[in-house]
Amino acid sequence: MIKVNVMYPYTEGARFDLAYYRDRHMPLVKARLGSACTYYTVEKGLAGRAPGAPPAFVAMCVFIWSSAEGYQAAMQEHGAEIRGDIANYTDIAPLIQFSEVVVERSDR
Amino acid sequence: MIKVNVMYPYTEGARFDLAYYRDRHMPLVKARLGSACTYYTVEKGLAGRAPGAPPAFVAMCVFIWSSAEGYQAAMQEHGAEIRGDIANYTDIAPLIQFSEVVVERSDR
Repeated sequence: MIKVNVMYPYTEGARFDLAYYRDRHMPLVKARLGSACTYYTVEKGLAGRAPGAPPAFVAMCVFIWSSAEGYQAAMQEHGAEIRGDIANYTDIAPLIQFSEVVVERSDR
Repeated sequence: MIKVNVMYPYTEGARFDLAYYRDRHMPLVKARLGSACTYYTVEKGLAGRAPGAPPAFVAMCVFIWSSAEGYQAAMQEHGAEIRGDIANYTDIAPLIQFSEVVVERSDR
């Protein structure tokens, strides 16, 4: 099982429309990715470790995939449309990380 | 619902014992944190966006909390013991981020 993390670094003065991201962009992406993407998560950055410190990332999402091949095939087909929608909610270039799921959730 | 992300930045030549982290450290932390921490996740970084690029983080974990207060109380009581165990699996200083859960998982 593979995770694709999409992380938007905190940037002073940058724009990030969380409502658009949650209600329009993420459902669009999921619709295009199809069933090879099992589910996604979305979070909003609140703070860093020190009191009052900004978060490293203003928003993050994770896509859970049964296989890396499923991701690659879906992005080859729909990547241009998905990336084209980013300007509608942010001017921050996201950081992408591929991870292997070690513990999906500890209570299951 | 609050997420606490603990992210270990990729560092050339650094040490990270994933087996210890998964089998010893994380269960220890969960035992100390108690029921205010609903569950945790663990992932191992594989790659960045570019082919062959190292991941931004060699490992990440997430703790899901019903409230920020629960986290603060647990860390005040057990933080020293938890931080004291870090040297047993890594020499990387983790990045911490507090986030608000916007979508816990899209399929529920």
